[in-house]
Amino acid sequence: MNTQDLVRSLHIKNNTKIVMLVADGLGGLPVKPGGPTELEAAKTPNLDSLAKQGVLGSMIPILPGITPGSGPGHLGLFGYDPLANPIGRGVLEATGIGFAVGRNDVAIRCNFCTLDGSGVILDRRAGRIPTEESAPLAAKLRAVSIPGVEVFVEPVKEHRFVVVFRAEGLGGNVEDTDPQKEGLLPLDPVAHDEPSRKTAELVRQFVAQATKLLANQPKANGLLMRGFSKMPHIPTYEEVYGLRAAAIAVYPMYKGLAQLVGMKVVGTPATLEEEIDVLAGAWKDYDFFFVHFKYTDSRGEDGDFDAKVKMIEQFDAIVPRVTALGPDVLVVTGDHSTPAALGSHSWHPVPTLLVSRFCRPDACMTFGETAALAGGLGHFQAIHLMPLALANAGRLGKYGA
Amino acid sequence: MNTQDLVRSLHIKNNTKIVMLVADGLGGLPVKPGGPTELEAAKTPNLDSLAKQGVLGSMIPILPGITPGSGPGHLGLFGYDPLANPIGRGVLEATGIGFAVGRNDVAIRCNFCTLDGSGVILDRRAGRIPTEESAPLAAKLRAVSIPGVEVFVEPVKEHRFVVVFRAEGLGGNVEDTDPQKEGLLPLDPVAHDEPSRKTAELVRQFVAQATKLLANQPKANGLLMRGFSKMPHIPTYEEVYGLRAAAIAVYPMYKGLAQLVGMKVVGTPATLEEEIDVLAGAWKDYDFFFVHFKYTDSRGEDGDFDAKVKMIEQFDAIVPRVTALGPDVLVVTGDHSTPAALGSHSWHPVPTLLVSRFCRPDACMTFGETAALAGGLGHFQAIHLMPLALANAGRLGKYGA
Repeated sequence: MNTQDLVRSLHIKNNTKIVMLVADGLGGLPVKPGGPTELEAAKTPNLDSLAKQGVLGSMIPILPGITPGSGPGHLGLFGYDPLANPIGRGVLEATGIGFAVGRNDVAIRCNFCTLDGSGVILDRRAGRIPTEESAPLAAKLRAVSIPGVEVFVEPVKEHRFVVVFRAEGLGGNVEDTDPQKEGLLPLDPVAHDEPSRKTAELVRQFVAQATKLLANQPKANGLLMRGFSKMPHIPTYEEVYGLRAAAIAVYPMYKGLAQLVGMKVVGTPATLEEEIDVLAGAWKDYDFFFVHFKYTDSRGEDGDFDAKVKMIEQFDAIVPRVTALGPDVLVVTGDHSTPAALGSHSWHPVPTLLVSRFCRPDACMTFGETAALAGGLGHFQAIHLMPLALANAGRLGKYGA
Repeated sequence: MNTQDLVRSLHIKNNTKIVMLVADGLGGLPVKPGGPTELEAAKTPNLDSLAKQGVLGSMIPILPGITPGSGPGHLGLFGYDPLANPIGRGVLEATGIGFAVGRNDVAIRCNFCTLDGSGVILDRRAGRIPTEESAPLAAKLRAVSIPGVEVFVEPVKEHRFVVVFRAEGLGGNVEDTDPQKEGLLPLDPVAHDEPSRKTAELVRQFVAQATKLLANQPKANGLLMRGFSKMPHIPTYEEVYGLRAAAIAVYPMYKGLAQLVGMKVVGTPATLEEEIDVLAGAWKDYDFFFVHFKYTDSRGEDGDFDAKVKMIEQFDAIVPRVTALGPDVLVVTGDHSTPAALGSHSWHPVPTLLVSRFCRPDACMTFGETAALAGGLGHFQAIHLMPLALANAGRLGKYGA
């Protein structure tokens, strides 16, 4: 029995409220020897106060040394084994632009490309055509019509767009048409099972019609498709945890990831302050709240230590509004580290805190990476965070007698 | 290869003695912010002295957030994965009253119930009939006779009793006859495989004869059966560890759990002092000694912080008698936490200590939850405790060359 099946068999419903505040890319690194991390440099009186009341730990997103993308990072936080629940690239791309992928959909990442007169690929990215030129072209492809299937075409950025086929019985087990090299013809979509042969046939029809629609384009006169994928069969928060879960986020990617596990996306906040407004407004209607703050990650990706420190201080400032709502369990964490020193996601553990009436407080007096090393939650994998939150909310029964 | 198979392939026999002192429900919680846990509040000069000599750790009974019952809690301590070795409710109930369940037995939890004239259930618990009335009724059911099978009927408490069928080829995969609701007829025992169909047929015969024997009872004129189960196929301590293991306990449940893994139950002690008398008396004849102390859990379950503190102090007081025997490895732990603040088992880690000539001592100077967070054993799952004990006893060979 895996952890999630165990939790599914033990969960209990009650009236408690659980809040998970996720500062994306929270964990960091010092920029000078002996110096603080971004979180340790930030003035975080509210988070430090929570650290005194609660229990800290050093959370490993996937496995030691493994750097997660946003998809696996959040799946782990949500309590789903990211290695057992891979999200296909097509589904992730669609999710990232806020497209609600359904159970019958096959989602595909596409590139505009430049073909010569004989159909050979001259440029796999159509000269990185700018978004203002590519978006209308993607819209133009909506004219493709194939009987018995709904076709969606959504622009992404520059040369990228997403195609979704919606019909019963379609498989996602189709090879990329992108040969990954210039000077070659696009590949035929090779299918590996019967349902995927249907998808491959749709692909051929789509490509034929699309190529006609793009025929007169100077650069983007062809397309390449890859990352064919269907929605993973992920049980919902209601099924696994018995929780009515709300997701509050500004960016489409995180709304999409939350929807994958059956959370309801609430509100259309544009700032962290507005996210907390939405939280307060939805308080009565849900048991669990995932609140996502993006900019700690963004400034880490920029490599800007001081700007990330400021974002952490903004994040700290809203904490009193959350505690004022009186959550039974409050978790503060990140989906991974994004140290400014690296300017990218990293494998480093994420300092994590949990406060409840029934947590066993440790000696930690501040919220930070070094403090978390001595925390009562120890070093633990992200997939154990949800069971800990549920236990602290009195929402998990005893295993065995 | 799982941990246990690994250990099984590596174990070595020698003349060392290992003692595992289990204070049931040892781990606790503070009752006021910043206050001590029960173990931290207790005066434990002997355990603190062991903590100075040995190595501490924070032990997770099953998985983070998961609260174990006594069965899974002890299986974990004994080094058996509690999730891979579930113990059926019937077997656990029989074990709990000291009935030695055999490999051919099907054990069943039963309730006396009250039926109306047409056989409909009026009260699933026969008015919670007191033990002094129900025990003679259970004994009366021993008159049931079915050819080709041994039938055992054992009283438990109030309306509860246990039935065991002993014969070759019986299956335990039978649905409860208890519909879990009043106003319904008892259910037919539905079997899910061929060996279980034999069991179901025995159940029908047992119920028919028992109902006649109970016909004139005012309240307990019927019975309901649930938790049909067979002994799990658990390898013994001798097989896995090469240890002649003795179990010393006051309560039948813990004797039964120890028997499940092939320990020999020695003595009939009634107090902790008597348990140590038994330990001293059996010292020459065994390699491993499991000594169980119940009352730390009982007072935690009562929600009585001060009483649990006193029980821990009683437990501490017998430590010198144990060390005087000169064990090569001494482990002190609990099967789970039972914080008085919760009045129930909990998911919190259990402070654990191990002393041997070859342990690598850490900086811990006292035995307690906070000290254990900085201990040399770190945060570890219960199933790793036995391999650690064996290694410290020089009883585990090298893996690979």
